[in-house]
Amino acid sequence: MKFNIIRCARAVLRVTDLNASRDFYERALGFVVTEADNNHLYLRGLEEYHHHSLLLKKAEQPSVEVISYKVHSEEDLEALYHFFRQKQLNPKWIEEGQQHAIGRAFRVQDISGLPLEFFVKMDTVERLLQRYDLYRGARVQRIDHFNCMVTDVQKAYDFYVKELGFACSEYTETEDKQLWAAWLHRKPNVHDVAFMNGKGPRLHHIGFWLSDQLSLIHACDVLASMGYASSIERGPGRHGLSNAFFLYLRDPDGHRIELYTGDYLTSDPDFQPIRWDINDPRRQTFWGHQAPDSWFEEASIVLDVHDDKTVEVKEPTLQKMKPTFII
Amino acid sequence: MKFNIIRCARAVLRVTDLNASRDFYERALGFVVTEADNNHLYLRGLEEYHHHSLLLKKAEQPSVEVISYKVHSEEDLEALYHFFRQKQLNPKWIEEGQQHAIGRAFRVQDISGLPLEFFVKMDTVERLLQRYDLYRGARVQRIDHFNCMVTDVQKAYDFYVKELGFACSEYTETEDKQLWAAWLHRKPNVHDVAFMNGKGPRLHHIGFWLSDQLSLIHACDVLASMGYASSIERGPGRHGLSNAFFLYLRDPDGHRIELYTGDYLTSDPDFQPIRWDINDPRRQTFWGHQAPDSWFEEASIVLDVHDDKTVEVKEPTLQKMKPTFII
Amino acid sequence: MKFNIIRCARAVLRVTDLNASRDFYERALGFVVTEADNNHLYLRGLEEYHHHSLLLKKAEQPSVEVISYKVHSEEDLEALYHFFRQKQLNPKWIEEGQQHAIGRAFRVQDISGLPLEFFVKMDTVERLLQRYDLYRGARVQRIDHFNCMVTDVQKAYDFYVKELGFACSEYTETEDKQLWAAWLHRKPNVHDVAFMNGKGPRLHHIGFWLSDQLSLIHACDVLASMGYASSIERGPGRHGLSNAFFLYLRDPDGHRIELYTGDYLTSDPDFQPIRWDINDPRRQTFWGHQAPDSWFEEASIVLDVHDDKTVEVKEPTLQKMKPTFII
Amino acid sequence: MKFNIIRCARAVLRVTDLNASRDFYERALGFVVTEADNNHLYLRGLEEYHHHSLLLKKAEQPSVEVISYKVHSEEDLEALYHFFRQKQLNPKWIEEGQQHAIGRAFRVQDISGLPLEFFVKMDTVERLLQRYDLYRGARVQRIDHFNCMVTDVQKAYDFYVKELGFACSEYTETEDKQLWAAWLHRKPNVHDVAFMNGKGPRLHHIGFWLSDQLSLIHACDVLASMGYASSIERGPGRHGLSNAFFLYLRDPDGHRIELYTGDYLTSDPDFQPIRWDINDPRRQTFWGHQAPDSWFEEASIVLDVHDDKTVEVKEPTLQKMKPTFII
Repeated sequence: MKFNIIRCARAVLRVTDLNASRDFYERALGFVVTEADNNHLYLRGLEEYHHHSLLLKKAEQPSVEVISYKVHSEEDLEALYHFFRQKQLNPKWIEEGQQHAIGRAFRVQDISGLPLEFFVKMDTVERLLQRYDLYRGARVQRIDHFNCMVTDVQKAYDFYVKELGFACSEYTETEDKQLWAAWLHRKPNVHDVAFMNGKGPRLHHIGFWLSDQLSLIHACDVLASMGYASSIERGPGRHGLSNAFFLYLRDPDGHRIELYTGDYLTSDPDFQPIRWDINDPRRQTFWGHQAPDSWFEEASIVLDVHDDKTVEVKEPTLQKMKPTFII
Repeated sequence: MKFNIIRCARAVLRVTDLNASRDFYERALGFVVTEADNNHLYLRGLEEYHHHSLLLKKAEQPSVEVISYKVHSEEDLEALYHFFRQKQLNPKWIEEGQQHAIGRAFRVQDISGLPLEFFVKMDTVERLLQRYDLYRGARVQRIDHFNCMVTDVQKAYDFYVKELGFACSEYTETEDKQLWAAWLHRKPNVHDVAFMNGKGPRLHHIGFWLSDQLSLIHACDVLASMGYASSIERGPGRHGLSNAFFLYLRDPDGHRIELYTGDYLTSDPDFQPIRWDINDPRRQTFWGHQAPDSWFEEASIVLDVHDDKTVEVKEPTLQKMKPTFII
Repeated sequence: MKFNIIRCARAVLRVTDLNASRDFYERALGFVVTEADNNHLYLRGLEEYHHHSLLLKKAEQPSVEVISYKVHSEEDLEALYHFFRQKQLNPKWIEEGQQHAIGRAFRVQDISGLPLEFFVKMDTVERLLQRYDLYRGARVQRIDHFNCMVTDVQKAYDFYVKELGFACSEYTETEDKQLWAAWLHRKPNVHDVAFMNGKGPRLHHIGFWLSDQLSLIHACDVLASMGYASSIERGPGRHGLSNAFFLYLRDPDGHRIELYTGDYLTSDPDFQPIRWDINDPRRQTFWGHQAPDSWFEEASIVLDVHDDKTVEVKEPTLQKMKPTFII
Repeated sequence: MKFNIIRCARAVLRVTDLNASRDFYERALGFVVTEADNNHLYLRGLEEYHHHSLLLKKAEQPSVEVISYKVHSEEDLEALYHFFRQKQLNPKWIEEGQQHAIGRAFRVQDISGLPLEFFVKMDTVERLLQRYDLYRGARVQRIDHFNCMVTDVQKAYDFYVKELGFACSEYTETEDKQLWAAWLHRKPNVHDVAFMNGKGPRLHHIGFWLSDQLSLIHACDVLASMGYASSIERGPGRHGLSNAFFLYLRDPDGHRIELYTGDYLTSDPDFQPIRWDINDPRRQTFWGHQAPDSWFEEASIVLDVHDDKTVEVKEPTLQKMKPTFII
């Protein structure tokens, strides 16, 4: 590969009430607040020594400013930048010093219209993995993946796998062999990013890794005791696809967060991607539970990296389906 | 109290296919099979040294033959028998030797029409609590409680609390202070029996105790991997009422089983029963999840202890309600 | 039985530094502080609605003022008082108002010299069982048992079983059939009190119930991260005897606390006490781990209920043994 | 890097009694038996789709035939072979067909005298990750790492890091800044291989990954119930170094197995290796527990890849130390 993308690394979300967000992310979910001011909340998981993996910015409307990947070296970053230029996707440098805590980066709208960012360096802070006395709520460990709704999954798949060097771990096909959804990774677990067929481009959710299942159960209890029962959208359950134990939450602005633990190692180049039929009832929830309609319909709008305007949401290429069991 | 009932002790269920039942209870849920023949399957939990806590009998139609309580002494048993005679409820002795593995017992239709049995002695067998090498599936530990749908909860409550000496741990009231459901115990945890307003008399479910939450999660995984995903009716979740972590299953005949763990000690006579409003969303599932319609509507029919015929199901006294959140 | 003792209910310990105690019990172990002043710290578990189950009093030297049982009614309390008088054990009333938060009580040195207290009423407070947002550390749920070293276990056994109405769940015998240790209960789990052969009378430890094994593992992590690694004396492990998952800690004054979860129901009068051979390696720790010497040798001294002086510690009747595996 | 080693992949151990081994690995630990004959036992974890990760061969004496790494491509394998030749370490090809289930490989004694193997291809089999009905014992998921005792850790470190392209996650230094132990990885968790100062070359243990802490606790219970309590050498506990929850076992031939779960992601090139002082009591067991002498002294002897003879064990370069807390 010409460029070495390491992993999904941070998301920048716009939210309307930072106090509400802080209560939700810090007190209920157990994120660590690295820094906060009137307009920013920098959050990280307990094992993260990078400054943040989730940056919330105060805004009038909730939206997704960017989802961001860490790249191996400055040379990789340059090469990636030139790749996007060559693809005429119009990448845009953000020089060091322009963003708090991270080095030189560039942003670009990807082939599906999703706002991406790539960077090499971020300030480091103390890792709190063994400060068990500070653990609370879901005990969030680290960022794990992005899940995006796009109008053409096959196109996104081709771009990420053939051009950017992602590998596919699992995928869903329709009855007529159309690619409905795909789970793609750079770091060797199930995904750094997944694409699902739907109105897009939108961010469906950000997944955060937990150390174990009981932290996830405890998160439900804590959320309910704090009055956040209605924030629990789906789960807890076991995914058939990925085998992870999961919980989907909606933050105070409606951004969807997945608590996620227990997938598997995908380090080997001879790993054969696992195919799921779109109608397999165990694909979504191995135990057979159906997801609520909101989980299929709702997702976060994304912004244009150049003009900061909302990117128009379009109908998907494949006809929207939601038979008995569908992503 | 004139008679000392110790605890809920066994249920006798009629089922249509003992092989299907055995696969479900033994392989998927981890019950121990004490004995089995062409017409009977005697099951117990891992900590139980009594011969069985669940007896399945082959029959044409699924039904509940009896739910059964262990009584402290023969004197208590005699006194209870005479109490029921005095109440003109027509109890019926079953002498020792007439039932396999248990001593002298009597059966009677209670004030709600539920088929009860009381006994003192049951054969004992090896307790397998520390045979961890035999643990499988849900690792069921012991029987915990019966939950019954009756047409008049207040009447059942009065009978069990004032006459039989049960104590109330928690209860649900309607907006106009009618008793909608009640959790009653003899052994000091939340219940040996619960009564819910509904078409009755019917057995809603039998609860079995697990040692921990992860055994319950594992049970879901095992059930799904064996093709029993559709047997998972509700949960896993946390009850507001009782605080237990729960899972509701339907066995191959539709009998409902609850896997249950983590309620609390109710040993003290000054414990004040906890009141829940019927519309409190956290009452059923603390996390806010709604139960499916089947959970409200369906339950097992019961038999008459004298003629073995199905007891007629009647409409409840309180108007059937299922607002946003209802038992 | 002439008197109905319900359960072990509270301990009153003397400690030298209430700030150190509070840090240990509240922050590391997750006890709830009901009240505190310069000389007292009132602690309870998350499911307890009684004012406290552990009272720490500031003193020059660590010691045990009293271990205390809740009794069913004032009539039971009177009858118990007269029983002890009749035994010439010189019980002493403490009238309501003389102790904060509890009603009329009496204290007495038992047959082994242990300082006991019996009471009926204690002030009630809000139960925090479902305030999961307040859970921390070991998430202590409730008091479970006392474990005492006495010089003559057979004598203590006879007194508690034959006179006070306790039942025996498990016991340890020497090779020559001498009773080495016994686990006795009123509430139906393995014990409210255990007696072990040793220098006595001394309090070996107080057991507190946790909801699950992972809370206990997390407690180890939290203790270590707060600098309390040296407070972990033994475990985590599985007891052969009782089947409980356990951890032994030493508080800042050396009082020993057991975190304990997962024993079994002992409600039935026909339960046959389980016999363990003193040399069975799985008795103490089912996994075969040996306990450290301190666990055998050290225990808290107790006070005289009349003169507040230390009760003299005497050599045990049975010769002290610690072969490969011994309590 | 000139060659891309993916991860530690299998070990070939010699054992004296395959029936005893099978009982231990399959029934107690929950390994899957892919194939077995009179002289071989091929074992894998529940998520592994490669034919085996542990091959046991019947022999007169227990020993380690080889520890083996999976390499990205045939080109990488060739390049590695030539690298070892150039280093005059005398690698030896084993052509496809000579070993069951794996493709062309080469073997070589590394710089410390450890018998290594490198290969690209192994036969694939059904992954049983979601066959929860087959889970038993420790529910072993996959191979995680090798831990080796070598006489010169600095030399091994330099060879693996500078020549083979491993990265260091954590290390232990003596007071005078000598490298005492190092944890090195190719896949991005804490290690594929660790080197500890000691008599060598010897294999100290093989680590296998579990999905969660309670599977490890359950493993202790199952081992004890099957009579394997004496196989539990150390733990369960939390490592300070790596943060993993661990258990050390000795198999029927004395080979040491670690059950291991819960370390962290080490994907980033800017990750700074964590330094531990050899005398830090939390390094080995975060909770402060000491390891038994056997853990420091005993390890498996290794064979020469050319003549199949035992490789002579030599004294370490750094003086053997075992103060209060030492690896």
